[in-house]
Amino acid sequence: MRMDPLQTAIVDAGPTHLRVRGYDVLELMTQGTFTDMIFLLHHTRPPTPVERRLIDAILIGGADHGPGAPSCAAARLAASGNRQSPSAAIAAGVLTIGDEHGGAGSACMELIAEGIERSRRDGITFARAAAALVDEARAAKSRLPGFGHRMHSVIDPRVDVLFTLAKDSGLAGDGIGMARALEQAIAQRIKPIPLNIDGALAAILHDLGFPPLFGKLIFIVSRVAGISAEVLEEYTREKPMRITFPVAYDGAPPRRSET
Amino acid sequence: MRMDPLQTAIVDAGPTHLRVRGYDVLELMTQGTFTDMIFLLHHTRPPTPVERRLIDAILIGGADHGPGAPSCAAARLAASGNRQSPSAAIAAGVLTIGDEHGGAGSACMELIAEGIERSRRDGITFARAAAALVDEARAAKSRLPGFGHRMHSVIDPRVDVLFTLAKDSGLAGDGIGMARALEQAIAQRIKPIPLNIDGALAAILHDLGFPPLFGKLIFIVSRVAGISAEVLEEYTREKPMRITFPVAYDGAPPRRSET
Amino acid sequence: MRMDPLQTAIVDAGPTHLRVRGYDVLELMTQGTFTDMIFLLHHTRPPTPVERRLIDAILIGGADHGPGAPSCAAARLAASGNRQSPSAAIAAGVLTIGDEHGGAGSACMELIAEGIERSRRDGITFARAAAALVDEARAAKSRLPGFGHRMHSVIDPRVDVLFTLAKDSGLAGDGIGMARALEQAIAQRIKPIPLNIDGALAAILHDLGFPPLFGKLIFIVSRVAGISAEVLEEYTREKPMRITFPVAYDGAPPRRSET
Amino acid sequence: MRMDPLQTAIVDAGPTHLRVRGYDVLELMTQGTFTDMIFLLHHTRPPTPVERRLIDAILIGGADHGPGAPSCAAARLAASGNRQSPSAAIAAGVLTIGDEHGGAGSACMELIAEGIERSRRDGITFARAAAALVDEARAAKSRLPGFGHRMHSVIDPRVDVLFTLAKDSGLAGDGIGMARALEQAIAQRIKPIPLNIDGALAAILHDLGFPPLFGKLIFIVSRVAGISAEVLEEYTREKPMRITFPVAYDGAPPRRSET
Repeated sequence: MRMDPLQTAIVDAGPTHLRVRGYDVLELMTQGTFTDMIFLLHHTRPPTPVERRLIDAILIGGADHGPGAPSCAAARLAASGNRQSPSAAIAAGVLTIGDEHGGAGSACMELIAEGIERSRRDGITFARAAAALVDEARAAKSRLPGFGHRMHSVIDPRVDVLFTLAKDSGLAGDGIGMARALEQAIAQRIKPIPLNIDGALAAILHDLGFPPLFGKLIFIVSRVAGISAEVLEEYTREKPMRITFPVAYDGAPPRRSET
Repeated sequence: MRMDPLQTAIVDAGPTHLRVRGYDVLELMTQGTFTDMIFLLHHTRPPTPVERRLIDAILIGGADHGPGAPSCAAARLAASGNRQSPSAAIAAGVLTIGDEHGGAGSACMELIAEGIERSRRDGITFARAAAALVDEARAAKSRLPGFGHRMHSVIDPRVDVLFTLAKDSGLAGDGIGMARALEQAIAQRIKPIPLNIDGALAAILHDLGFPPLFGKLIFIVSRVAGISAEVLEEYTREKPMRITFPVAYDGAPPRRSET
Repeated sequence: MRMDPLQTAIVDAGPTHLRVRGYDVLELMTQGTFTDMIFLLHHTRPPTPVERRLIDAILIGGADHGPGAPSCAAARLAASGNRQSPSAAIAAGVLTIGDEHGGAGSACMELIAEGIERSRRDGITFARAAAALVDEARAAKSRLPGFGHRMHSVIDPRVDVLFTLAKDSGLAGDGIGMARALEQAIAQRIKPIPLNIDGALAAILHDLGFPPLFGKLIFIVSRVAGISAEVLEEYTREKPMRITFPVAYDGAPPRRSET
Repeated sequence: MRMDPLQTAIVDAGPTHLRVRGYDVLELMTQGTFTDMIFLLHHTRPPTPVERRLIDAILIGGADHGPGAPSCAAARLAASGNRQSPSAAIAAGVLTIGDEHGGAGSACMELIAEGIERSRRDGITFARAAAALVDEARAAKSRLPGFGHRMHSVIDPRVDVLFTLAKDSGLAGDGIGMARALEQAIAQRIKPIPLNIDGALAAILHDLGFPPLFGKLIFIVSRVAGISAEVLEEYTREKPMRITFPVAYDGAPPRRSET
């Protein structure tokens, strides 16, 4: 029977060759870094040294924030109950990643793109475009993705590192400009809510030419390294079924079926 | 209510610091590579330059082998039916990874460790220890993990690259020695079945001091980069529900319930 | 250390008792059906006999539509590559379920609720409210969830069974009324696109008082039965790694890195 | 391009018909129960009334044991971080199910089958065969699957319900006989460790003619109903990212990279 082939512009794999975006993987294996490969897989070319530095910083910064994060906690729970498959535990961790946990990068990239587009289209400054976006979010009572973090009420030190790297590299572009404009507008119109790690990477990834969805994907690729390490620790150091939870019931009192 | 804390020796995260295995993550962000972080998370120290080169080669070599591999095909299927969550698609891809697909590295690391242990314990050569293991697997009709590949009947070129890198780096140790001994024993006693990519990385990872489980984990960390890129392509280039399968029914003929 | 307990109004489990929504699970085990339990878990009371009949029909109708569906195909792919964990294969199948595959029930429940609300609020007939919704979807070029199916261009016979059951049971309410009004409005204003299984269950579930999210959840609960059976067949009848895909590369030609 | 079709003996789906194991699904929708469908999907025929009662009891008994169980806790964690996809949360819950959590049914079915086989082969009583198995497990320091539960140190009341149902139904066969023999042998040779819910269902499922793998699968099918309900509650009653964990670091002290 027939089925349509799975078409791809990413990988060309044959019995004697393996190329990604046209580049020879064997050559990359001897000279490149995994970060080059991650860039190449999601872009159309390898990174420049400056771009590689920024992507490395983002990947390192997001890899692990401790076992209390939903991603690592869920992976440990799965490793606690199901010790037949480390991939099952890693997948359970990946599944906790969404708009609320580590996935705000994508939404922030869309917000940044929208602000830049408005500035161009309406011939207004970044500051005014950012103010408009903040007012709209406030009116709609919606959160501004990429700002605020439940654990770092004042500042996440990783954000400064990322922005310093971006500035030093000469890469600072419209994405970073709009992110800063949004941060200022939020401080003036609501209260100071610092850009978080998702917002910082959103600004940089915009300036590197990645599509918004990559904001989520790079966090997943990064965090899988940490999830994997925590699964290894759970398998080798802890007993199965060791994680128990306090529970409280507040539903209906005992009652009898009428049947 | 109380619950036992999730203990870890990997990450120390506080409001003002973030350390992995005691090393400052902020410093790593400005100077290290993602490969350093992956090494550090699963080991107890950062890699040397030679170790970094080998891990980079393994991570690059396993990242993507085309959308026909179960991992990428399953991720695309999930992205085809469920476009609300890229993490769901990536998790579906991860879940296909087991002993049969990309997970042979761990089993091969155990085999290599067993061979080396026998050689030491019984005072025999690697060749004799390998021959014994091959004979036992043959008698038990079990496969030898790390040897053979469904797509590369002759040779996977990535294997040579890995071994050349290992040799050039001066890192070639007992792991690689035992892997080669096993390959030779298989050729003499069964038929030539070349070491595959899982076997090559198993040999190297053994020599770098990683535990057997890391053989599976590094493949997952590596392949998630490729799965992620294929999910991005599926989301941005293809329509939902575009993947259909030919199906054949060969079960019971139509019959009526007797109730 | 402290953590907030996981609160729930569903289950009260103790060393000597187990109650769901206040009802004794031991008693249910001797007298009830699994469908009663599914209803009770997602509602606040057990079903009446007529409600049980409808939920059974929905659960039976959605359980399995063949291995070509993304849910079952992805589960088989995972079982093909990872034979260490049946739960990994079932999870891979579940992950393909979203708005595009079997998840339209929820969106259709929201559409139906919106139509009924408009009719009430604006004092217009269901027909007029439905016509407005269809026109708006058309203008926005968005699909109407619950209508159309890639495999049944004319009619899905399961839809008639569900509606006949609903009519015979005397349960037909506003949900079914609005679903039929939408179907008619689509036929008049676009082209005849029959209500599919998701749409039928959306109408019935609305009339039974379930929240919109249950439209997705009941499909998952139902389909897991089929996925599980297909995983059992894959494990017991097929060899690992037997599923291969045709692939086509249409990306950049071979090129050399400039580094 | 060509690919082998996905063959199946379970479902025959066409544009005008849908049959499972040869039985008309439309007819089942009007007359059967979801439990009939679950039985039919995993067996080759529908259940008798007595068999249906037992399967219903197993499915009801395993559906939900509170949010503290790894399956439900992991699903809630995923729903807490990723609110884009209920199927992602349900999958995360499913992934925690393995030999250690709810998956012991399969292993216990294998143990029971081994005991019965020995009794027949060696012409010894069930008591002697059970004693031998218990002694071997004790010597190997391995656990006996299907016995003991972390929350019910004395007795799980669901076990009695299942066995009473099995006895009343006249279905009590070799499976139940061997399970009781094992329980007695454990009490005499180690200490009283009551049969748990996994062991009870293993005994019954053996007597109903299901393969060992079904011991895991029926628990997953059953538990998905509870996971789904807990995900619904988490989505509709709780805020995103509300679940936090106490964490303790006990790794290396702060140190500086030498690079």
